[in-house]
Amino acid sequence: MKKHNFSAGPCILPQEVFQKASQAVLDLDNSGLSILEISHRSKAFVEVMDKAQSLALEHLKLPKDEYQVLFLQGGASMQFIMSAFNLMQTKAAYLDTGAWSAKAVKEANLLGKVDVMASSKDKNYNYIPKDYEIPKDVDYFHCTSNNTIFGTQMKHFPKVDAPVVCDMSSDIFSRDIDFSYFDVIYAGAQKNMGPAGATLVAVKKSCLGKVDRKIPSMLDYQVHAAKDSMFNTPPVFSVYVSMLTLEWLKAQGGVKAIEKQNKAKADAMYAEIDRNPLFTGFAAKEDRSMMNATFNLTDESLKDKFNNLLVEAGVNGLNGHRSVGGYRASMYNALPLESVQVVVKAMQELEKQA
Amino acid sequence: MKKHNFSAGPCILPQEVFQKASQAVLDLDNSGLSILEISHRSKAFVEVMDKAQSLALEHLKLPKDEYQVLFLQGGASMQFIMSAFNLMQTKAAYLDTGAWSAKAVKEANLLGKVDVMASSKDKNYNYIPKDYEIPKDVDYFHCTSNNTIFGTQMKHFPKVDAPVVCDMSSDIFSRDIDFSYFDVIYAGAQKNMGPAGATLVAVKKSCLGKVDRKIPSMLDYQVHAAKDSMFNTPPVFSVYVSMLTLEWLKAQGGVKAIEKQNKAKADAMYAEIDRNPLFTGFAAKEDRSMMNATFNLTDESLKDKFNNLLVEAGVNGLNGHRSVGGYRASMYNALPLESVQVVVKAMQELEKQA
Repeated sequence: MKKHNFSAGPCILPQEVFQKASQAVLDLDNSGLSILEISHRSKAFVEVMDKAQSLALEHLKLPKDEYQVLFLQGGASMQFIMSAFNLMQTKAAYLDTGAWSAKAVKEANLLGKVDVMASSKDKNYNYIPKDYEIPKDVDYFHCTSNNTIFGTQMKHFPKVDAPVVCDMSSDIFSRDIDFSYFDVIYAGAQKNMGPAGATLVAVKKSCLGKVDRKIPSMLDYQVHAAKDSMFNTPPVFSVYVSMLTLEWLKAQGGVKAIEKQNKAKADAMYAEIDRNPLFTGFAAKEDRSMMNATFNLTDESLKDKFNNLLVEAGVNGLNGHRSVGGYRASMYNALPLESVQVVVKAMQELEKQA
Repeated sequence: MKKHNFSAGPCILPQEVFQKASQAVLDLDNSGLSILEISHRSKAFVEVMDKAQSLALEHLKLPKDEYQVLFLQGGASMQFIMSAFNLMQTKAAYLDTGAWSAKAVKEANLLGKVDVMASSKDKNYNYIPKDYEIPKDVDYFHCTSNNTIFGTQMKHFPKVDAPVVCDMSSDIFSRDIDFSYFDVIYAGAQKNMGPAGATLVAVKKSCLGKVDRKIPSMLDYQVHAAKDSMFNTPPVFSVYVSMLTLEWLKAQGGVKAIEKQNKAKADAMYAEIDRNPLFTGFAAKEDRSMMNATFNLTDESLKDKFNNLLVEAGVNGLNGHRSVGGYRASMYNALPLESVQVVVKAMQELEKQA
């Protein structure tokens, strides 16, 4: 039986992407070769890389002459240090909205002074701080658009004169915002883009080349940009599946259309969390994430009963992160509304049985 | 028609690995989930990671209490700087045997003094330098065991008192040598281990923790070791396929058995290069690689004719690297002897036609 997969990442991808990827592992487009054995310099793969880059720019509505899209490795965790290597001259401003923000702060601290503008750590990151002002003299401002673990999401971004760097790992391609506000967007592939192993970076060309330090080649955006993400062997399969997923997104009508579906899913989920007396939402209502809904049982003794209902319904990956407990419904682009309805039904069934 | 794939990397993997990987993209072990959508914290994937690590240690005959195997991202190119971050205190000795060695030297130079012991650059890297002595006071000695581009391979390793770091990207798991001679072995997966996107590092625990610098988390072997390669989301699919390939290798009889097959393939290839007056080998005979045989036409005007014969025979990826020209037969573990025989036949056919 196919599962309803709420895994926080790696996560569900479109079923037709799984079909195409599976076929390509046997034989890529009738080439007589598997996608796993072709050279990254082959015409077939150069086309895949080009297409993945173009589709990413298209979905983000970023002009090709101003922004460079890179497909790298190492996930957002590598970008914590890599973005600092490329942009930190003396000091930078960071917004601390969760565990991943805090890790970004830690790494950037190795290369310069980090000023934390505001933090919601005081309430276990259940809200997004809003009352802060970013000094004009920072090299950049860094934020995390969506906090997977805590289920909060930035709905507005502050006015800022410096370049903005954003970790968009868990909500990229999920909502229609002005992406040109950002100078560097990075995201591990394994939520809305593809399988783990590829990392997307969209970087405004004009913000590069301004630091004095010598940057290791593999951590230098300009090195990768000059070689169109082919400075070294890219993660071929992950880039290929990302391309397939970005094609699927286009066929769905793009970011604007998927946002509507994501809103419908989130609305259904939060409506039940708010209605059902057995559950309570974790994140502040105004900061609730459209991607990850975090919630807890009001009565922990019902845990086993609810977990059984979930197993019976074929629900996978609904457990909350250990730092929040309870449950987390990750509702990424490829998750069908039907899966949310299955969880809502299990919540209602629990209410009946309790 | 299935091709005879001589690609230098990414390269051919065993056909049964393609079959299993393709199935797992649809449904991993009847779990109702694709290998691309499971959490890296799931029981299923933790078992994959454990098995991949154990098999790697087993094939390298390295004791688990002394060595840690890591599955990272970024390929050998990332290891050039990462190994230096972890081991370079003041100076290190490097052997320059090719383009990749030279890149390793360049990156390490950012963190300390690099003494190049010897170089074969004077003859376009067509041999392995042998006449050098490594000073006792270096932090480590770095070498490249096999030079993919030039088709040379180290048959002996020098006596050295310092830790030895080896880029084994293109010949790991291909021959039975004393791997415990090395303190750090690293290898991009995409030759004998799996698809691009995973990087194997086997590191002797006792050589870590000896440098003063603060190491970015993602570049710190100890950080990854403490989390068993799960510090951040690993490249799930690439690790899974690497595990399948290491299982396949075990079923073949392991490194010793595959070495016999590799020798048979290389012998057949080099015998024809030496016999056929239309071809000439590029690498010095005593340093010839068992993985990559580099050779040129003695008469360049036969190029089109030979290329046509290769296309007709279904041969893929035999073109040499631009810095050597001519041809390169990459004969990694999964390449069948039959494929070599097909190329040999094409070479003989050219001789008949010429």
